[in-house]
Amino acid sequence: MPELRKDPVTGRWVIIATDPARRPSDFIRSRVVSKSNGDCPFCAGQENQTPPEILSYRDQANQWNLRVVPNKFPALRVEEMLDRTGEGLYDRMTGVGAHEVIIESREHKVSLAQLPEKRVEDLFWAFRDRILDLKRDSRLRYVLLFKNHGEAAGASVEHSHSQLIALPVVPIQVQEEIDGGRRYYEFKERCVFCDMLRQEASHGARVILETDEVLVLAPYAARFPFETWVLPRAHSSHFESAHASLIQSLAWAMRATIRKLERVLEYPSYNFLIHTAPIQEGPLPHYHWHLEIIPRLTRVAGFEWGAGFYINPTPPEEAAQFLRDAGL
Amino acid sequence: MPELRKDPVTGRWVIIATDPARRPSDFIRSRVVSKSNGDCPFCAGQENQTPPEILSYRDQANQWNLRVVPNKFPALRVEEMLDRTGEGLYDRMTGVGAHEVIIESREHKVSLAQLPEKRVEDLFWAFRDRILDLKRDSRLRYVLLFKNHGEAAGASVEHSHSQLIALPVVPIQVQEEIDGGRRYYEFKERCVFCDMLRQEASHGARVILETDEVLVLAPYAARFPFETWVLPRAHSSHFESAHASLIQSLAWAMRATIRKLERVLEYPSYNFLIHTAPIQEGPLPHYHWHLEIIPRLTRVAGFEWGAGFYINPTPPEEAAQFLRDAGL
Repeated sequence: MPELRKDPVTGRWVIIATDPARRPSDFIRSRVVSKSNGDCPFCAGQENQTPPEILSYRDQANQWNLRVVPNKFPALRVEEMLDRTGEGLYDRMTGVGAHEVIIESREHKVSLAQLPEKRVEDLFWAFRDRILDLKRDSRLRYVLLFKNHGEAAGASVEHSHSQLIALPVVPIQVQEEIDGGRRYYEFKERCVFCDMLRQEASHGARVILETDEVLVLAPYAARFPFETWVLPRAHSSHFESAHASLIQSLAWAMRATIRKLERVLEYPSYNFLIHTAPIQEGPLPHYHWHLEIIPRLTRVAGFEWGAGFYINPTPPEEAAQFLRDAGL
Repeated sequence: MPELRKDPVTGRWVIIATDPARRPSDFIRSRVVSKSNGDCPFCAGQENQTPPEILSYRDQANQWNLRVVPNKFPALRVEEMLDRTGEGLYDRMTGVGAHEVIIESREHKVSLAQLPEKRVEDLFWAFRDRILDLKRDSRLRYVLLFKNHGEAAGASVEHSHSQLIALPVVPIQVQEEIDGGRRYYEFKERCVFCDMLRQEASHGARVILETDEVLVLAPYAARFPFETWVLPRAHSSHFESAHASLIQSLAWAMRATIRKLERVLEYPSYNFLIHTAPIQEGPLPHYHWHLEIIPRLTRVAGFEWGAGFYINPTPPEEAAQFLRDAGL
């Protein structure tokens, strides 16, 4: 049974997966990546190979375009009882939560940039629908939405998909962003992300793309080369409160941004993830949801692990210039 | 000129390297790793290929066994003036600091586990000597000591070496550990690491190795499979205050632990790093220096980046058992 454990010093929660626990030989064996089309469980026609569907979007012929299914090897399970216990100075809780896969396309391998715009919109609608559903379970505090694209980004299945993990705790880095936003708000009575949006839009050097609803930029203190953020222009702490025109604009901007990254960096592996407020909280004046894209171009070394301190070899202004120049 | 930039939300500092900035083509070209013995600048006989030596330990024949040299492409430079400036809501400072390489052996490629015990001791003495020297520069607040071993761990040179980065700021993850230690101390009036040592030593299930001076264990909330910590038994916040018998014990334990990891995981890539208190601070009752070893067995995916939240597929109790059973 998976278990959540808390680091007694920093307060960081970790999932300890136990079924099956991975033994040394599992790491030594080279990883089995991506079945080819044909025996891929996410491909159209193989629907019986996944656990039962949670959600699907279908066309008029009742053919699915997007499916959400539980992860076959979930890191957390919604069926558990939430139980918090101590073990001397340590704290743990049962692994209550959800781990779902959003299958983005009937086709085996297709980039977000190649998907029709409507399908990219569907991905964001699915994120929204799933949050609204999971929110009803009061044990769950946070929903992480993310995509691992390519082997260097940690993808273990090739078929185009995103993932969702619902947690009974708020992840530490998200909590730090919220706390940082609160400190700024207490001092200035303004949202730090709104201030950043204003400064970036008027300065321009780090802007990659603009629409009426979103700004795509290279963040000032980017940790990684070509790190890219997509921010809604209007203040909003919760992704799930996004209305239709914002979802449309976001989908268009994401598709264009991924295409730019693919052109400039020749189809890199990347992760993207949505930072949004905890699902059980009301609207926060000091937090502003956004999406972060991290191309996986360099290997993270001891320095970064050890200190949460990053060396970025490409100034964000230069990265933004390359991406701006790449055309739509 | 390298620059330090602060994330306006979390307060995390990042080094933006600028000379030379890496362009998209630098990431697309496959990385050039490790010259073979012969034209390796760290090998014995090639001393003129490195910048001038900062420190060396030599035998009676005046032949070096360990050398410390500046990194040829330093992320930070000690020659800069420390200058803090704002840019709208952003904060930055000049890239003052040091970036040094500790060459651990005359031979091209040799594992710490294969080095004579005395040479491993020398490595820790060199860490200590360098901190004591850098501490005299009051602009520097922190010294990060780390090793990247193997390509998956981010090593770009094959010759056995460790690294040191001296910083004008305290890295965010270290600061969080110190803050967490302080909160625990305020509540309990005891060091959280000392409590952990007592509980682990009596419980035993996560202990990998013990000496009179150090305990080697799999931490309760390990982020990574086979993550291993080496803690001095006696309370001490600063690594550089270690006395000779502790350095000896540490070297012995590290050598034995690396050998165990090499046996169980078949020579994995790994990082190790020392978490110690900021160099300009006096002794802290609430912080306890230690060394963290992270074998690089899995790829870090979007989930981890996005949230600082980790899924560890090997319970630390099982990892400790495998490593205990591996023999010395």
